[in-house]
Amino acid sequence: MAKPYPRSPLALSLPKLTSIAGVRLSGVEANIRYSGRTDLMLVEFAPGTTAAGVYTRNLCPGAPIPWCRRALASTPHARALLVNSGNANVFTGRAGEEAVVACAGEVAHQLGCPVEDVFLASTGVIGETLPYKKILSALPAAIEALHDDGWEEAARAIMTTDTFPKAARREVKIGSTTVCLQGIAKGSGMVAPDMATMLAYVATDASLPQPVLQALLEEGVGPSFNSITVDSDTSTSDMLMLFATGQAEHEEIGSHEDAALAEFRTALKDLLHELALLVVRDGEGATKLIRVDVQEAQDDGSARRIAMAIANSPLVKTAIAGEDANWGRIVMAVGKSGEPADRDRLSIAIGDHWVASQGSVKDHDVEALNAYMRQQEITITADLGLGSGRASVWTCDLTHGYIDINGSYRS
Amino acid sequence: MAKPYPRSPLALSLPKLTSIAGVRLSGVEANIRYSGRTDLMLVEFAPGTTAAGVYTRNLCPGAPIPWCRRALASTPHARALLVNSGNANVFTGRAGEEAVVACAGEVAHQLGCPVEDVFLASTGVIGETLPYKKILSALPAAIEALHDDGWEEAARAIMTTDTFPKAARREVKIGSTTVCLQGIAKGSGMVAPDMATMLAYVATDASLPQPVLQALLEEGVGPSFNSITVDSDTSTSDMLMLFATGQAEHEEIGSHEDAALAEFRTALKDLLHELALLVVRDGEGATKLIRVDVQEAQDDGSARRIAMAIANSPLVKTAIAGEDANWGRIVMAVGKSGEPADRDRLSIAIGDHWVASQGSVKDHDVEALNAYMRQQEITITADLGLGSGRASVWTCDLTHGYIDINGSYRS
Repeated sequence: MAKPYPRSPLALSLPKLTSIAGVRLSGVEANIRYSGRTDLMLVEFAPGTTAAGVYTRNLCPGAPIPWCRRALASTPHARALLVNSGNANVFTGRAGEEAVVACAGEVAHQLGCPVEDVFLASTGVIGETLPYKKILSALPAAIEALHDDGWEEAARAIMTTDTFPKAARREVKIGSTTVCLQGIAKGSGMVAPDMATMLAYVATDASLPQPVLQALLEEGVGPSFNSITVDSDTSTSDMLMLFATGQAEHEEIGSHEDAALAEFRTALKDLLHELALLVVRDGEGATKLIRVDVQEAQDDGSARRIAMAIANSPLVKTAIAGEDANWGRIVMAVGKSGEPADRDRLSIAIGDHWVASQGSVKDHDVEALNAYMRQQEITITADLGLGSGRASVWTCDLTHGYIDINGSYRS
Repeated sequence: MAKPYPRSPLALSLPKLTSIAGVRLSGVEANIRYSGRTDLMLVEFAPGTTAAGVYTRNLCPGAPIPWCRRALASTPHARALLVNSGNANVFTGRAGEEAVVACAGEVAHQLGCPVEDVFLASTGVIGETLPYKKILSALPAAIEALHDDGWEEAARAIMTTDTFPKAARREVKIGSTTVCLQGIAKGSGMVAPDMATMLAYVATDASLPQPVLQALLEEGVGPSFNSITVDSDTSTSDMLMLFATGQAEHEEIGSHEDAALAEFRTALKDLLHELALLVVRDGEGATKLIRVDVQEAQDDGSARRIAMAIANSPLVKTAIAGEDANWGRIVMAVGKSGEPADRDRLSIAIGDHWVASQGSVKDHDVEALNAYMRQQEITITADLGLGSGRASVWTCDLTHGYIDINGSYRS
C-alpha cells in the first residue's frame, strides 16, 4: 500500500471521545509494513475487567483467532489487547502460532498479568510471516505511551485500507449511575458476515459479569456487524470484543435481561450499529451508502438472505454507482436468492418511489427518482407480499475505486 | 447501450460454420432497443425435430421462460425459435405474457405449425414493456431471410453486451453415419449458475427421441454452463436448448447411454464446454480467463462450492486483474465457503507454482510466478487434503471494464 487512498466521500468525523475509567491506550510505530504511521495498538485494562468476543467464522482463520477463543474460554478477564496492522498473520503455519505466543507472553511479562488475559489481533496482508520481533521491540514504547485519552491514536493504529478512523460513544444510566460505552473499529474491504475484515473494540466502565457481557454482545452483533457487507468476502481475522472495566459503581447485574440494563442494552446495540455503518461508509471505493430493507418475506431468515442477495449483487451495486435506478437488477437478485418469492406479489421501491408493484412496472416520477439516485444515501425496499419476515442490511456501491484498491493492494 | 464496448482481449474468432440439415436461420433488424444492428433471430426446424431445454432457476423469470417450460412439457417437438435482444421481457406482468402469446401465435400462423412448437426467448433490459409489435412487424422479413447458412447472423442478432459472436461446431459418427452438432451462445454478464444471462442453442441433424435429447443436455450442462460464473448474478431469462432435426440416417437410439452414442455424448459435452468458455471469455470487462481447480475436497459437491467461492470472490478477481499472485485471498475464499477445510492441510497453486503448502507459505520462484500472472489464462488450484472430491469452474477477472459497462448499461 504505497499511497494512501482518498478519504471516502461518505466519511464522518470522529465524535468527541473521552476516557473510560480503567482503559489506557496507545498507538505506536512498529514498522511492520507501513512506515511513517502508527501500526501497533496497545490497550491496558484495569484488573477485574471482564471480556466478551465474537470471531470470524472463516474456517481458515489467522493465528490470533484461536488464541483469543481459547483465552476467552479459559478466563472471564482481560488485561491487555495488542493489535497490529499491515500483516494479518494468516496462513503462516507454525511461525504464526509462535508469533502469537511470543507477543502474548511478552505483554503478560511486561504488564505483569496472566498470559491468558492478553488478547491479540492482526490485520493486513495474508500469508506473509509476521515479523513479530518488530512488535516486541516496539512494545516498551507502546507501554510507555499508554494513557487515558489514547482512543483516537488507537483507532488510527489499526487502520489498513481505511480512509478515516472510526469511533462511537454513548452515555447511559444503570440505575442511577452514569456509565460510558466507547468503541473503535477498522475495516473497509473483505467485509461480509459473519464478521469481516473488521476489528471492533468497545469498552465500558460498567461492572458486568462475563456471561452477561457475552450475551449482550451476541445480541448486538446480528443487526449490526452481521448485517453489513461490502464485497461478500469474509475475512480470516476479524473480531468484535467488548470489555467492562467495572470502575463504575452501580447495582449488581445478574442477567443480560436485567431491567436495570435496559438502557445499556439499547445503547450498546445502537453503538455497534453506528460502528458497523462507519465500516460500510469506508467500503473500498464506496460513494454511496445503501440500505436494503426486505419486508413481507416468508420469515426473518428468508428476508435476511434476500436482503444479502441484493446487497451482494455486483450488478445492483454498479447500477447504484452509476446513479441508475435499475430496479430490474433488484428483481434478478431477489430471484437468484433461491428464497420463496412470487413475481406477481413482488414490489420494489427505491427511496419512496415504488417503481414496480406486484409483478410489473408502476408509473413513477422518473425525474424525482433520478434526483434521488444522485444522493449519497440510497434505500432499496423489496416487499415480497408473502408473510411477515423483515430484515435490513447495509452495503455500499461498487466503483472503480474498489478495483483500484484491490487490483494493487500488495504492490 | 449507446456505444459498443471494445472487443474482449480474450475473444476467439468464429470457427468455420456450415449448415445443419433441417435448420434455417435469420437475423433481422426489429429496432427493439438497438438501431443499426440486428436484434431478432428466427430459427426454423424441419418437421419432426425434437427439442430439449434447461432454464434459469431464478425465481423471478422472464415471461418466455414459463412459456418454454410449458411447451417442452406438452410436445417433444420444435418447429421454431424466436429470440430478441435489447429487452428481456422480465417483470412485465400481464403485458409480458401477452407479448409471448402474440409472438408465438404469429410465428405458428406464418410458419403453419402448432403454437406449442414455437420457443421464445428475450434478453436485455429487465422491467420495460417489450414492444412486441415491432417483432410482429419484423417477422415477415425474418421468415423471408431464413436460410441454411444463417448461423453467424443468428449468433450476432442475440448479442447484448457481448463483444464477439459465439459459436462452436463438432462432427462425429453415430454408427457409420457422420452427424453434425453446431451451436451458438450469447452472454457476458449476470452470468452465474444455474444458467445465466446466457442463451445457447445447439442443433444436430442426428435423430434422437426427446427423452434421450433431454438426458444428454442435462448431463452436459453441469460441467459446462453450470460451471462458469462472471459475477455471481443469475439471470432471469436464460436457457440452453438442444434440437435434433433427425435428417441424418442412422440406427435408432433408445437411450442416452446407448453405446452408439458414445462419440456424440462426448462431442456434445465438449461443444457445450467450448460455448460456456466463450461466454466467460466475453465476461464484462474480462482481461483474464481463470480456471479454478479444487481437489482432495471432502466430496465433489464440496469441491464445487469451494471452487465457486473462489471464482466469485471480488478480492480474488481484482487481484488477478492486477496480476498480483495474492494467494492469501484464495485462502480466505476457501475459508469463507463454509465447506470442510483444515488450514494445516490446505495447499494452493497458481499455475504450476505451489505457493502455499499444508498451512503455510512455501518457497517459490517469485519472478516466474509474476511472469505467469501476466498471461491471459490463469489456473488456480486449491488442494484441501481431505478426500477425493474434485471440481473445476471457470471465471474471469474483475476490472474497471465491468464497472464501466454496468454503471451505465441503461443510459
